[in-house]
Amino acid sequence: MYKLRHLCLSQQCSFMAMTSLRLMRVMTKRASFSSSAVKWEGGVSMVQGASRGIGLEFLLEKEKGHVIASCRNPNGATSLLHLKSKFAERLSILQLDVTNESTIEESAKSISEKYGSLNLLINASGILSIPQVLQPETTLRKVEKSSLLLAYEVNAVGPILVIKHMWPLLKDGGGLGTERDVAVVANLSARVGSIGDNRLGGWHSYRASKSALNQLTKNISVEFARRKDPITCILLHPGTVDTDLSRPFQRNVPEDKLFTTEFSVQKLLSIIHNAKSHDNGKFFAWDGQEIPW
Amino acid sequence: MYKLRHLCLSQQCSFMAMTSLRLMRVMTKRASFSSSAVKWEGGVSMVQGASRGIGLEFLLEKEKGHVIASCRNPNGATSLLHLKSKFAERLSILQLDVTNESTIEESAKSISEKYGSLNLLINASGILSIPQVLQPETTLRKVEKSSLLLAYEVNAVGPILVIKHMWPLLKDGGGLGTERDVAVVANLSARVGSIGDNRLGGWHSYRASKSALNQLTKNISVEFARRKDPITCILLHPGTVDTDLSRPFQRNVPEDKLFTTEFSVQKLLSIIHNAKSHDNGKFFAWDGQEIPW
Repeated sequence: MYKLRHLCLSQQCSFMAMTSLRLMRVMTKRASFSSSAVKWEGGVSMVQGASRGIGLEFLLEKEKGHVIASCRNPNGATSLLHLKSKFAERLSILQLDVTNESTIEESAKSISEKYGSLNLLINASGILSIPQVLQPETTLRKVEKSSLLLAYEVNAVGPILVIKHMWPLLKDGGGLGTERDVAVVANLSARVGSIGDNRLGGWHSYRASKSALNQLTKNISVEFARRKDPITCILLHPGTVDTDLSRPFQRNVPEDKLFTTEFSVQKLLSIIHNAKSHDNGKFFAWDGQEIPW
Repeated sequence: MYKLRHLCLSQQCSFMAMTSLRLMRVMTKRASFSSSAVKWEGGVSMVQGASRGIGLEFLLEKEKGHVIASCRNPNGATSLLHLKSKFAERLSILQLDVTNESTIEESAKSISEKYGSLNLLINASGILSIPQVLQPETTLRKVEKSSLLLAYEVNAVGPILVIKHMWPLLKDGGGLGTERDVAVVANLSARVGSIGDNRLGGWHSYRASKSALNQLTKNISVEFARRKDPITCILLHPGTVDTDLSRPFQRNVPEDKLFTTEFSVQKLLSIIHNAKSHDNGKFFAWDGQEIPW
């Protein structure tokens, strides 16, 4: 089946506002691994936070099975709506705002009615900065309570509430219809959420929210294992990826460390695709290496 | 100088509501190490969250130097007021609510005017449960957004805002007037905040808040080190201590693992007393062992 990604590349590029140099680099990286592209499994997958960036890229790589794409504002999600017009049958779009639990409950109800179960949940939403509202802190002096709480609510609380409500669907789905033995919950974390790996400091709100997300995901993985639910929870560090989230902070990123969304998502899909029960509760970088807590 | 603790033991026992068995056990433990009691250093120390439990115990062990005790509601802090009536010169009581940043700013201003600097800041405040408001979760199903946010605000955000405002005072104080080379910031964390050590799951709100506190403390320690400020930040796990915080959850704690506040605080004071620059950013259990993140 033709990949969804080819239909959407023009829109994606338009909002990436690339310089010609970056465009060349991106195109080179895109070409470099396309022969070894990972195949998505079938079954029913959900990408939460799918309107742009890494979340959208996960959809673009989807070759078979059903996919639910959720985002805060579907009406403004141009790329997502374009995909929907071409793949009505395979793609469902749901309005879900992680800061509004009733939208999560409504989404779970809708998925239950339409599909009955889930085999994969990718929590891809997240915030790092919002102009005039949230700025990654460069010093303790700039740490504000409002920023700490906002980052925590979106990056840590949100994904956990999504898992809470999707849990029965994931339990029912397990690995059925896929090539895996288990359903997978993949939470997008970040290496800067690692405490042991923290050498540079700064970005207090973002770091703390990701450390908390790591703890909450580990916590949930322990309960799923104890109950013998066929669900594996993993945390993923996508690398520094050329998205809206990282764009204001790319200046000091070496050229070969700035990944295209396609490169990163291919790597992450490979980890998801091969996830086993014994990976439950682990924190992986894009290259499959485990990251210390 | 006579220890403050002897003056306050009667009040402490009255709110501990002990069974006679527990009282015996506590008394036994109290007797077992009194000959090797750690001496507090001089200088100016602050115990934030000092009206009861471990925070109060830190005051009781104070043998010399000045101490600032802060709590949310000094007028209701019977033990603290009793101490104040006996030790007016050495003890200052300040109203500080970690959820209200203006009270932190006011406290910093007051300390600056009265003492000019700080040599030690112990963040001892924290919440685990509040009847009808916050209950440690036994399953993901019981996880509520309001609980996650409340625990985060009190246990992670609060102590960090206190450090933010006390930072200039600690920098000015360093180890002057004590037997240390550095000022110390000691944040009370908990072993259940360790992600790597999480085998049991549950207590989502509390665990996540302590993991975030660990990350934020580590983050701050990196900045202090880079600026060469004479401040060492450490995280302390006091063990399971017989306080109001742990009381509803002591049923499954083996008898020899339930510490008196005096035992735990003696151990923690020993770590604080011996803290060096190279301990900056570390997470210690009561016995001095490092805890994995």
